Amino acid sequence: MEIHRPPNNYFDDALIRNLADAFETLDKDQACRAILLAAEGKSFCAGANFQSRPELGLALVADFRVAAPEARFAGNFVKIGIHPGFGLTHTLPRLIGPQRATLMLLTGRRIDGETAVAWGLADQLSPLDRLRADAYALAAEVAESAPLAIISTRATLRDKLADTVEAQTRHELREQSRLMKTEDHREGVKAVAERRPGRFVGK
Amino acid sequence: MEIHRPPNNYFDDALIRNLADAFETLDKDQACRAILLAAEGKSFCAGANFQSRPELGLALVADFRVAAPEARFAGNFVKIGIHPGFGLTHTLPRLIGPQRATLMLLTGRRIDGETAVAWGLADQLSPLDRLRADAYALAAEVAESAPLAIISTRATLRDKLADTVEAQTRHELREQSRLMKTEDHREGVKAVAERRPGRFVGK
Amino acid sequence: MEIHRPPNNYFDDALIRNLADAFETLDKDQACRAILLAAEGKSFCAGANFQSRPELGLALVADFRVAAPEARFAGNFVKIGIHPGFGLTHTLPRLIGPQRATLMLLTGRRIDGETAVAWGLADQLSPLDRLRADAYALAAEVAESAPLAIISTRATLRDKLADTVEAQTRHELREQSRLMKTEDHREGVKAVAERRPGRFVGK
Repeated sequence: MEIHRPPNNYFDDALIRNLADAFETLDKDQACRAILLAAEGKSFCAGANFQSRPELGLALVADFRVAAPEARFAGNFVKIGIHPGFGLTHTLPRLIGPQRATLMLLTGRRIDGETAVAWGLADQLSPLDRLRADAYALAAEVAESAPLAIISTRATLRDKLADTVEAQTRHELREQSRLMKTEDHREGVKAVAERRPGRFVGK
Repeated sequence: MEIHRPPNNYFDDALIRNLADAFETLDKDQACRAILLAAEGKSFCAGANFQSRPELGLALVADFRVAAPEARFAGNFVKIGIHPGFGLTHTLPRLIGPQRATLMLLTGRRIDGETAVAWGLADQLSPLDRLRADAYALAAEVAESAPLAIISTRATLRDKLADTVEAQTRHELREQSRLMKTEDHREGVKAVAERRPGRFVGK
Repeated sequence: MEIHRPPNNYFDDALIRNLADAFETLDKDQACRAILLAAEGKSFCAGANFQSRPELGLALVADFRVAAPEARFAGNFVKIGIHPGFGLTHTLPRLIGPQRATLMLLTGRRIDGETAVAWGLADQLSPLDRLRADAYALAAEVAESAPLAIISTRATLRDKLADTVEAQTRHELREQSRLMKTEDHREGVKAVAERRPGRFVGK
C-alpha cells in the first residue's frame, strides 16, 4: 500500500480512515500474508509545516519499520503546546524504552535513521535507493513462514496491545483537548510555522 | 555443568529433566554460589537438523550468557509451523524488548554473537578460545560477593518471573498443541529438514 | 543546583532532605522550567570509600543524565552484603532493562560513561570540559517548550512511577534491615574499605 500525497504526505482523518479500512479488507484476505505500507515522495512523512500530525504514531502501528539514514523521526507535541496522541505515549516507550521515549517527547528532538535503528525505533537501515526492495524482502521473510503460526505468535507477542493503546489514546485525547484551549498552544503552532522558539506563558 | 552430546547437543525431555534435577541439587548446596552451564562441542546448541527444540529457551533460563562471535541464536518456530515454547515469548521480550523479540520470532532469523550482545540477548562477547574462561570469570565475579545479598537481590530482580514463565508456558503449549495438528506443521518440519522454504496453505 | 562536598560528594540523610526541600520549593516556582543538578569536584559522586551510599539512586531520580566518558556508575551493594536501596531495583531496570540491571547489581561492576550512554543509563556523552554547558543546553531544550504540555506529557510518561518507587523502597528497606544484621555485611564493609574481596560465610 502506498500513500500518494507527495512530497510531504500530510495526514488527515480521511486518510487514516481509508488506511484502516484497507487494512481490515486485506486482513480478511487469506492470500495476504504481509502488508507493506509506503509513501510516495522523499520520505514516509515529512514537511516544513509538520505540526504533530499522527505520522510518527502511524509508523509505530506497523509491526516493523525500515528506515533510510536520511529518515527523521520526531514528535514535537510539546513545541506546539499539546500532549502526544495516536497512542504514542504507549507505543514509543514500548519500542525504545521509557527513557528514550521521554527524551524524544520532552525535547521534541528529531532522531535520524541510524539512531532510530540503534534505539529500536526502526528495525533495519537501508540506503534510500534500496528502501522499498529491503522493506519488501522483510515482508516476504514474514510471509514465507506458516501463516497460522505467524498469526498465533504475533497475537501472543502483541497480547493486550490494541486494548492498552485504545485506553491510552483516550487519556491522550483528554489531555490534548484541555491543552488545545491554551494560549500556549496557539503560540506554539505559530512559532513552529515561523520556525522560531515559542514565547510561552504557561497558560 | 557440561552437556555432552557433541557436536550438536540435541536436547530432549530426559536431558531437560536431568538438568533441572542437577540445578535443584546444587541449589541446596551452601558451598555452590554460581553454576556455569556449557556444552561440549563447537557451540552450546547447534545442528543442521535444528527443529525448534528448546535450545534458545534453555539458554534464556540462565542469569547470564557469554557468547562467541560465531554463536547463532534463533527461534525458527514459524518456519516449522508452530508457536514458540519454553517460555520464550516471555523471556525473550524481557531480555531484548518486545520489538526485537517480534523480529526474531516472526522471521525465524539467526542472530550472530555480536548482534546478540548489542541487543542484550547475551551479556558478553568472548573469542571462542576464551569462552569458557570468560564465562567462569563472570560466574566467579558473582560468587565472590556476599551470598545472602546475592540471593536477596536476585529474588527482587526476578520478582514473579518463575510464575509468569509458568503461566506463559501453559499458553504456549495450548497454541503448540493446536498448531501441531496442522498440515503446515508437517510441511514445515519437512521443509526445514530439506533446507527449502515451506509450501504453506494456512491449514 | 550544585552539591558542594568536593572531592567525593559524600551523601547523607541531611543532604538528601535538603535536596528534596529545594526541589519542592523550585517546583512551586512558575518561572522554573527545569532544574540542573550538578556536583562540585571531579564527578557527580565518587570516592575511594564509596560504600553503596545512594549516589546512583539519586542520579536515577532525575529525568535525564549527562555523563563524561570518565564517569563511573556502580551499585556495589552485594559486595558489602546488603540489598540495593533508594528505589534502584525499580529505576535501574526501567532505564536499562532487567538484564543489564541484573548484571550491574549482581556483580557490582563499574560501568563507564560510554557504556552508560549505550545502555541508556545516561542520555548524553559530553567531554568533561563541556559537561556543564551540555547539561545546561539539554535543560534549556526542555525549558523552551510549552510548560503545561511538558508537565502533562511528563506525568503521562512517569505514570505511577513515584508510587511504584515508594513501594519498592519499602521492600528494599526490609531486605536491607535484615541483611545489615549479618556477619557478611560487616565483613563486606571492611573488605571494600580495604580494597580486597570479602571472605563471606553466608551468615
